[in-house]
Amino acid sequence: MSVTAAQGFTAAGIAAGLKENGNPDLALVVNNGPRLAAAGVFTSNRVKAAPVVWSEQVLKGGTVSAVVLNSGGANACTGPLGFQDTHATAEQAAEVLGLNAGEVAIASTGLIGLRLPMDKLLPGIDRAAAELTEHGGEKAAIAIKTTDSVHKTAVVTRDGWTVGGMAKGAGMLAPGLATMLVVLTTDADVPAAGLDTALRAATRTTFDRVDSDGCMSTNDTVLLLASGASGVVPDTAAFAEAVRAVCDDLARQLIGDAEGASKDIRIEVVGAASEDDAVEVGRSIARNNLLKCALHGEDPNWGRVLSAIGTTSAVFEPDQLNVAINDIWVCKNGSVGEDRELVDMRYREVRITADLAAGTESAVIWANDLTADYVHENSAYSS
Amino acid sequence: MSVTAAQGFTAAGIAAGLKENGNPDLALVVNNGPRLAAAGVFTSNRVKAAPVVWSEQVLKGGTVSAVVLNSGGANACTGPLGFQDTHATAEQAAEVLGLNAGEVAIASTGLIGLRLPMDKLLPGIDRAAAELTEHGGEKAAIAIKTTDSVHKTAVVTRDGWTVGGMAKGAGMLAPGLATMLVVLTTDADVPAAGLDTALRAATRTTFDRVDSDGCMSTNDTVLLLASGASGVVPDTAAFAEAVRAVCDDLARQLIGDAEGASKDIRIEVVGAASEDDAVEVGRSIARNNLLKCALHGEDPNWGRVLSAIGTTSAVFEPDQLNVAINDIWVCKNGSVGEDRELVDMRYREVRITADLAAGTESAVIWANDLTADYVHENSAYSS
Repeated sequence: MSVTAAQGFTAAGIAAGLKENGNPDLALVVNNGPRLAAAGVFTSNRVKAAPVVWSEQVLKGGTVSAVVLNSGGANACTGPLGFQDTHATAEQAAEVLGLNAGEVAIASTGLIGLRLPMDKLLPGIDRAAAELTEHGGEKAAIAIKTTDSVHKTAVVTRDGWTVGGMAKGAGMLAPGLATMLVVLTTDADVPAAGLDTALRAATRTTFDRVDSDGCMSTNDTVLLLASGASGVVPDTAAFAEAVRAVCDDLARQLIGDAEGASKDIRIEVVGAASEDDAVEVGRSIARNNLLKCALHGEDPNWGRVLSAIGTTSAVFEPDQLNVAINDIWVCKNGSVGEDRELVDMRYREVRITADLAAGTESAVIWANDLTADYVHENSAYSS
Repeated sequence: MSVTAAQGFTAAGIAAGLKENGNPDLALVVNNGPRLAAAGVFTSNRVKAAPVVWSEQVLKGGTVSAVVLNSGGANACTGPLGFQDTHATAEQAAEVLGLNAGEVAIASTGLIGLRLPMDKLLPGIDRAAAELTEHGGEKAAIAIKTTDSVHKTAVVTRDGWTVGGMAKGAGMLAPGLATMLVVLTTDADVPAAGLDTALRAATRTTFDRVDSDGCMSTNDTVLLLASGASGVVPDTAAFAEAVRAVCDDLARQLIGDAEGASKDIRIEVVGAASEDDAVEVGRSIARNNLLKCALHGEDPNWGRVLSAIGTTSAVFEPDQLNVAINDIWVCKNGSVGEDRELVDMRYREVRITADLAAGTESAVIWANDLTADYVHENSAYSS
């Protein structure tokens, strides 16, 4: 049900002709209220696409009436003219929907460095507006796909209110593989500040801990819109948990559909002196190309895990490190542990546990393996 | 001519049986003096192999009489017993050569987490010692190969003195791809402190600026040994330049033979506010898997360069960034520049120039592309 699972939202997804192959490429999500509260989290890349720069401004007001999302072009590194294109997109949506352009968020994904074909995009907005329905969430989720093999949606329903959402991409907020675009909606009655708190807490331990290939996008955007249409003011903790659950679900779907990947790698760092240490070590393991290749080859190569840990500034002693792969402690006290032949590597999910033996903090990072398919897909992307 | 190009050195390379395929795997380099000065630079990985821990101690004395190098096993993450193996190796070499074990450096390369077969290594040292000659440099260079397709040597001769050396691996000091082992020798009459100064200056802008795959080894070792056999005390600047030239030559050979690579990528960052900024940006570009894939596909995807620059903390304004690929300025002022169709990507060397427009400092980083062959080679390495 995606972004229309919650009451008070309509959506549409159409083929505006931005993609040469004629696939759907333009999505519209409209908040029909009564509340128009919103929060957003954006890429931390300093090179930001025009729609990110625009939407960051929109979100400062805490009000979003509609979101226009397009695949088929990132509108990044397109200079002042690219920003004008984003502005014109918001104006067009505002006009056809009878809204204020300053309350229309924009998100784009696709190749960097190309202007969008505005002669197709602007009429597309009119057509999408004409197709807005309370059941349009699925079509909207399909229209934002780029290299995604499947569209990604998630819904959580609680006592009288719902959080739903859609996502595209195979990566994360910071950093991000392909651009990640996420729109979450809720009919819970929550003001912008409450949405912001819940969204930041949720993304910090979900999308922010997905590290498929270590590359950060110029366009990553996660929006949370509240219509208040349920009339229910939710318990703060329950709402935060529902937002986290939807984010976690979508984040796992991103990892599961990462470009060319054959393994989903769950890296849990335990025994850390601080959560920051645990995240730093987890990311270092997640980004080690040699390890990612080894896991693709179903080789429980724990030496490459230790080698990755050794590049961090986390608190640990090399001769106290312990590493388990799929629950077999192949490395104990920095040296050979249980027989690596015991590790069963046949399944898509690989679980790495790294024990720093330096404290009680922990963190989980999700990553993918490195495959020939990843290379092929990303060698040919823009050609 | 390798490590025996300079007077005062003998070397040997044999098959001791450490490698299952019977290829040469044990090298011995002996400094016959009159001077026995030495300097060393080691991996900055905090997880250090036993031979690195040992050799760092040896080098503190500034005297090295002999170096034992083995492929076929890294002796990393092998605990106290692994360290005893390294110690025993030095003792064996010392005994057969009539030296002090505390002046025998050890370097190992191969799989992490496996003990070395000492029943083969120790007799191998005796056999290698029996084969030491003034022409053994080539055989020594061959014996330290792991995944190297060719052995790597370089020699520079100046007024009455010579610097020569050998290298294995396809990476760098910090970080390093496969383990990089390098032994340089000179017959110039230079004390340990002078060697140390020249070596650190040289590695800082050569091996340290090679970033083939962003992975740092537990075993990287670069040694410079001086025999003083030429009787010539060289000009300090000329000696530093000769050491740098040999390091640069060997570093380029490492990049040119990197595992599975099809492109050598020269990344020059100019217009930086500081050299540190230039290096940070260069490394970020060098490690961007999406860009490495694009270059493999001969796609001058400058958007991925900007995306990589945007993840750094260097001084720059996004709308002032300029990027050239093979001398075509495809990105100007953070936006579309010259026609990317003009970029000729057919050759192995790809030159990326990133202008931060923030100062006058610069740095060059060398990297490789990411290929299906890299994945294949590193998926099957330890199986």
